[in-house]
Amino acid sequence: MLAIRNIAELLVVPPGPVQGSSMRTLERICDAALLVDGERIAWFGSESSLVTPPECECLDAGRGCVLPGLIDCHTHAVFASTREGEFVQRLEGKSYAEIAEAGGGIRNSVEAVRASTCQQLVDHTLPRLERMLRGGVTTVEIKSGYGLSVEAELKMLQAVKELKALQPLELVGTYLAAHTTPREFADRPDAYLDTVLDDTVLARIRDEGLAEFCDVFCERTAFDIEQSRRVMSAAARFGMAPKLHADQIRQMGATRLAGEVGAISADHLETVDEGGIAALKAAGTVAVLLPGCSFFLGVGQAPARRIIDADLPVAVATDYNPGSSMVESLPLVMSIACTQMKMTPAEVVVAATANAAAALGRQDRLGAIEVGMQADLLVLDVPSHERWLYEVGRNCVRTVLKAGKVVGNAQI
Amino acid sequence: MLAIRNIAELLVVPPGPVQGSSMRTLERICDAALLVDGERIAWFGSESSLVTPPECECLDAGRGCVLPGLIDCHTHAVFASTREGEFVQRLEGKSYAEIAEAGGGIRNSVEAVRASTCQQLVDHTLPRLERMLRGGVTTVEIKSGYGLSVEAELKMLQAVKELKALQPLELVGTYLAAHTTPREFADRPDAYLDTVLDDTVLARIRDEGLAEFCDVFCERTAFDIEQSRRVMSAAARFGMAPKLHADQIRQMGATRLAGEVGAISADHLETVDEGGIAALKAAGTVAVLLPGCSFFLGVGQAPARRIIDADLPVAVATDYNPGSSMVESLPLVMSIACTQMKMTPAEVVVAATANAAAALGRQDRLGAIEVGMQADLLVLDVPSHERWLYEVGRNCVRTVLKAGKVVGNAQI
Repeated sequence: MLAIRNIAELLVVPPGPVQGSSMRTLERICDAALLVDGERIAWFGSESSLVTPPECECLDAGRGCVLPGLIDCHTHAVFASTREGEFVQRLEGKSYAEIAEAGGGIRNSVEAVRASTCQQLVDHTLPRLERMLRGGVTTVEIKSGYGLSVEAELKMLQAVKELKALQPLELVGTYLAAHTTPREFADRPDAYLDTVLDDTVLARIRDEGLAEFCDVFCERTAFDIEQSRRVMSAAARFGMAPKLHADQIRQMGATRLAGEVGAISADHLETVDEGGIAALKAAGTVAVLLPGCSFFLGVGQAPARRIIDADLPVAVATDYNPGSSMVESLPLVMSIACTQMKMTPAEVVVAATANAAAALGRQDRLGAIEVGMQADLLVLDVPSHERWLYEVGRNCVRTVLKAGKVVGNAQI
Repeated sequence: MLAIRNIAELLVVPPGPVQGSSMRTLERICDAALLVDGERIAWFGSESSLVTPPECECLDAGRGCVLPGLIDCHTHAVFASTREGEFVQRLEGKSYAEIAEAGGGIRNSVEAVRASTCQQLVDHTLPRLERMLRGGVTTVEIKSGYGLSVEAELKMLQAVKELKALQPLELVGTYLAAHTTPREFADRPDAYLDTVLDDTVLARIRDEGLAEFCDVFCERTAFDIEQSRRVMSAAARFGMAPKLHADQIRQMGATRLAGEVGAISADHLETVDEGGIAALKAAGTVAVLLPGCSFFLGVGQAPARRIIDADLPVAVATDYNPGSSMVESLPLVMSIACTQMKMTPAEVVVAATANAAAALGRQDRLGAIEVGMQADLLVLDVPSHERWLYEVGRNCVRTVLKAGKVVGNAQI
C-alpha cells in the first residue's frame, strides 16, 4: 500500500464521459489523502480520516494538488523529421496550398517515414514520450498516417507497439492510413483505399494488436463522406472503433457522419455547426478539441463554449505533429484551451482526463479519482489545478504515478 | 580564452536597433566557431578558419545553434502573490472592471507587496529568475508598481537591487510608481503623484542606483497625457529615461507623447494607429510588443507586421506579471509572437536580443554577435533558431553563458 498525504487539493474528477456544467463543478477535497493498493486507488478522503494500513509506504504531496494523470487522446507523435521550414514559409505569407505544391505538407513527413526503419521511428519518438511523461501525461494515443502505404503504415504501428515495452506511458495505436492520398495514387483515392483496407492488412492489424481505432481525415483535401464511411466500415469489421478528423477546415458533413456511424470521437471541429453538434450528441460521441493546432496555425479555435453548452463531453488533446501542431506539452495546450477557448481550468482538466479516457474507450479504468480506478496520478508543486493552468508554460508536475508506481519526478 | 566549437548555426545578430527588413535577413554562419576572451566576444567565423589560441578551453556546441542571450525588457517579475482566482473569474465571464471592483486587479497585488518584507520579495522572485535563466534569458528588466506608496515602491526596487547579487542575471530596475492610483488616493491622482515624484524620493532612487528608467501607465484607467508627461519630466531630471505603457486598451495619444518626450521605448501598442507609429519612428523609440499579455487575456495582438513594415525597431518581452501575463518563459512568448503576430523566427530573435537591448539602452554591450560585445550567449540543442521557436514550449536551451561564463545548463 502507498499513502499519498499532505494534499492541499484532491480534485475528484468523476469517470467520463462528463458533460455540460458537470465539467466545471468538480468536488475538491482540501487537506486530503489517498491510498493506493497495487495498481489501483483504494481509498481517498480528508487526511484527518485516514487510517494508515500497516506496512504502508508514504508519499508526501508537499501541499500540492493531486489529480488523475493526463491522457493525450489525439497525437501524431511518431514522425521522422521536423518541418520548421514550412513554419517559416507560412509566417512569410505562403499558403498551405503553395507549400504542399512545393513538396511540403503531410507528404513531406511521408517521405521521411518511408525512408526510416522501425527502429529509427522508435528512437525518434522515445525522447518525446519521456518529455510528455515529465509534463504529466500517462496515456498517449498515436496515429499512423505518415506512411501511406501498407508497409509504411504497419511500420508506424509496429513502432508504437515496440515503444510500449520501452517506457512507462500507456500507448494506444490508431490506424490512419486514410490521412491523405499518397502521390503515387494521385487522383485515385479509391484505388489507394483498396490497398490499405485490404482484408489481409486489417486482419494483421487485429491479430498483432497494432491498432484499437481507425481514423480518417474527412476533408475536401483528403477523403469525402462516402470514402470515409467506407474506411470506418471496413475497419469496424476487424474490431477497430471509428474516429474522425471532422470539420477542421470546411464544413462537409463529417460530424453528421461521425454521429451516423457512432464514432467514439470526432476530432478538430473548428467549423462545426449546430447540426453537427446535434448529431454527435445523439450518438454519444466525444468531441475532441485541439487548441494547440489552431494556435500553431494562427487560425480560429473550435467553438468550445457552444459545444459544452450543448451538453457534449469535450476532450482536449495536443494533436502533436510536425506540420500543424508542434506543441508536445499537453499542459501548455490546456492553458491555451483556457485563454483562447475560454474553458475553465476544471473543464480543461476533465477534458484531458475523464473525457480523454472516454475518447479512447478507457473510462472504466482511467482518467478519474474513484475507488477501483487505476492509480495514474499527478502530484503538482502548486496547491490547486487552477494555479497550474494559470502558470502558462511552467512545468508544475512534481511526481507522476502510473498504475500505482512512481515513474517520473520532474526537474524543473 | 574559451572556444565554442561545432556550431551548426551561428546567428549573427547585429547590434540594435535593427529595423524593417533587416530584422529578418540575418547572416548565419554554418559550421561555425566563436572565441570568448574574458567577458567579451573576441572572434567568430567558420570553424575551418579557427586558430585555437594556446591554453584555450573548449565548449562543444554539439551541432547546436548559438545566438545572443535573451533580454526580457519588460517584466513585473517582483510580486508577492499569484492571482489565479481572477484568471478563473475572467474565464467564467466576469469583466476586468467587475473583478477590480471586487478587490482584484493591480490593487490585489499591491496589498500583498505592502504586506511583504523586502526579503520576502527577494525570496519569491529568486526561483522565477532561475527558471528564466534556464530558458535562455540573461538580462531582465523589472518594474516596481505594486507598492504605490513611497515606502513600498522603494522596497520593490531595493528587492531588485539585492537580487542582482544573488544570481547571474543582469537586472534593470524601472520606477513605475505611476502604475495606477492607490485606493487611499482615489480620485486624487495628482496628489498621489506629488508623493512619489517628490524630489527627495527621486534623488534617493538616483543616489542608491535603484532605477535606470521611469515608466508610466498612460491609460484611461490610470494616468492621462498631462499626468504622464509630468511623471516623465520629473524622473528625467533625476536621470531616469522615460518608458511608457502606451495604447494598450484605448487610443489616447500615448504613443504621440512617447515620441514627443523621446521615450526610449513605448510598450504594448495593441491599439496603436498610424499617427502613433509615425511619432515613435520620428523619435527613434523602440516599440516593445507583449504578445504573452494579449494571449493570456485572450484579446487582440498588437499589429506587429504594420509596425515592422513602418521601419520601427520592434522588441518582444514577456510582460510577466500575475494579473495579465502569467507567462514567465520568453522563448514561449517568442513562439507566440510567431504564431499569433506572424513575425518570423529571425525577427523575433532580433526583437528579444538586439532590440530589447536598445529598449534598455544597452545596445553597445548586449544583444549582438560582434567582436567586443559582451559574451552573453546561448547554445541550443537544435540546429537552428527556426527549429527552436517552431518547437513551441519545449526548452531547447542547452547552455547559457553570461559575460563569458557558463551559468546554466538546462535539464530538459
